[in-house]
Amino acid sequence: MTYCVAMCLKAGLLFASDSRTNAGVDQIATFRKMSIFEVPGERLITLLSAGNLATTQSVVSLLRQRLVDEKEHLYNRRSMYDVAELVGRTVKEIVARDANAQSLGQGVDFGGNFIVGGQIKGEPPRIFHVYAQGNFIEATDDTPYFQIGESKYGKPIIDRVVTPDTSLKEAAKCTLISFDSTIRSNLSVGLPIDMLLYRADSFAPAEPHRITASDPYFNMLRTGWGEGLKRVFAELPDEDWFS
Amino acid sequence: MTYCVAMCLKAGLLFASDSRTNAGVDQIATFRKMSIFEVPGERLITLLSAGNLATTQSVVSLLRQRLVDEKEHLYNRRSMYDVAELVGRTVKEIVARDANAQSLGQGVDFGGNFIVGGQIKGEPPRIFHVYAQGNFIEATDDTPYFQIGESKYGKPIIDRVVTPDTSLKEAAKCTLISFDSTIRSNLSVGLPIDMLLYRADSFAPAEPHRITASDPYFNMLRTGWGEGLKRVFAELPDEDWFS
Repeated sequence: MTYCVAMCLKAGLLFASDSRTNAGVDQIATFRKMSIFEVPGERLITLLSAGNLATTQSVVSLLRQRLVDEKEHLYNRRSMYDVAELVGRTVKEIVARDANAQSLGQGVDFGGNFIVGGQIKGEPPRIFHVYAQGNFIEATDDTPYFQIGESKYGKPIIDRVVTPDTSLKEAAKCTLISFDSTIRSNLSVGLPIDMLLYRADSFAPAEPHRITASDPYFNMLRTGWGEGLKRVFAELPDEDWFS
Repeated sequence: MTYCVAMCLKAGLLFASDSRTNAGVDQIATFRKMSIFEVPGERLITLLSAGNLATTQSVVSLLRQRLVDEKEHLYNRRSMYDVAELVGRTVKEIVARDANAQSLGQGVDFGGNFIVGGQIKGEPPRIFHVYAQGNFIEATDDTPYFQIGESKYGKPIIDRVVTPDTSLKEAAKCTLISFDSTIRSNLSVGLPIDMLLYRADSFAPAEPHRITASDPYFNMLRTGWGEGLKRVFAELPDEDWFS
C-alpha cells in the first residue's frame, strides 16, 4: 500500500508521500511516489501516486517523456484543471493498455490513484484527486486536503487540525504526526517520507525534504506526540462504571 | 459499516459496539450489534457482529433459538473455544443457506464477522475473532484486543494505550476515545454505543451501558480529548523548513 497527503492552504501547498511498495508481505521495496515537474518562475506541478506500481510508474514516465514530443504536455497545459485532465487521460490510456483480455479474470487490480497539485502563473495553487477511472475532483476550502492509499489511520488528526488558514509549518507538523500514526498501525506504509512545501505565488525551485528514521525533528515529534497523548489520556477522568 | 471492539485484560473483559447499519448511504438504520447470553454464576458470553446484517441477525437468532432444542448450544459448550467453534459453524451454515446459486454473481457479500468473548466457570476470560469463513483466532497478551468493521481510524489510540494490565476504567476511556475518532471521520459508524464491562471471575449479571449523544461522560471525553490533542499539537515545536 502507500500513504500520500496533499493540502491546499492559503499559505501554499503541502505534498507528502511514504515510499513503501508491497505485493503481499514478501515483496517489499522502496519507491519514491512523488514526482515534480517544474518551470521555475512559471509553474510547479507535483504528482503523488498510489495503487498498481506498474500503472503509476508508466503514467509518470509517459508524462515526462511526452514533455518533448507531444502537442499537449504538463508544461504547456494552461491550467491545473487541464493538467489534471491530462493525468486522468494518461491513467485511462495505461489501464486500457495493460488490463487486456489476457489478464482479465486474473484478479489483478491495474488501478492507480493520483493527487495532482501545483500552481501555474495566473492561477492560485490548486490540488486534484485523479481516480483510477481517470475522472477527478478538486479540493476546496471545505475540504482543503486529499489523502490516497492507507488514509484512515492518519485522518482523525488532519480532520481536527487543518483548515485553509493553517500555516505551512503547522501543516507539516500535522502531516508528520499523521504519518507516524499510520506507520505505527500499518506495515504497508514505511519511511522515508518525501515532503514538499510550496509557498503560494513563489514559483521557487522545488526543494523536497526526505525524512528518514534518523530525522531529528520527526523523532522529536513522534516522541513528543506519543507522550503528549498519554498525558492527555491520563488527565481525563475515569467513570465509575460499576457503581 | 460498523465499529466493534473487545479487549481481554487481566482485570476482565470489555465489549463495545456502535449501532449504525447502512446499505449505501440512503438506507441507514439503528441496530444493536451486541448480544449477551448468560447464566449468572456460571457463564457470560457476548457476541459483537459486523458485516451483512441478514447473516449476523440469523446467526444470533439461531444461536438463541437453539438454546432450548439442540444438543449443542451456547449454554452447554464446555469452553469458550467450543463456543467460538459453534458460532463459526453457525456462520458457515447461514452463508451456505443464503449465498445460493441464484444470488451468485449479484455482487452481494453475505459474510459476517463476530467477536465472541466471555467466561465459563473453570476458565479465564477469553475473546475470539470469528471470521466470515467460520474459522477463528484468540486474543493473547501480545494482542489483547480485537476490532471488527471500520477499525482503522480508532486503532492508533488503542495501540498506544492498551496492554493486558490496563484497568477496565482506562480501557473504557480508551474505547470511547477510539469510537469518537471513528465517528468523526466515518459516517457509517454512529451513536449510540453499547458497552459491557465484565470483571474477571465475577459471573455477575451483565449490565451493559448504552452511551447516547447526551451522555455526560462521553461528551466530557470528546471535548477534553479534542482540546488536549490541540494543546499537545500546539506545544510541539515547528521546524523552519525554508531556512
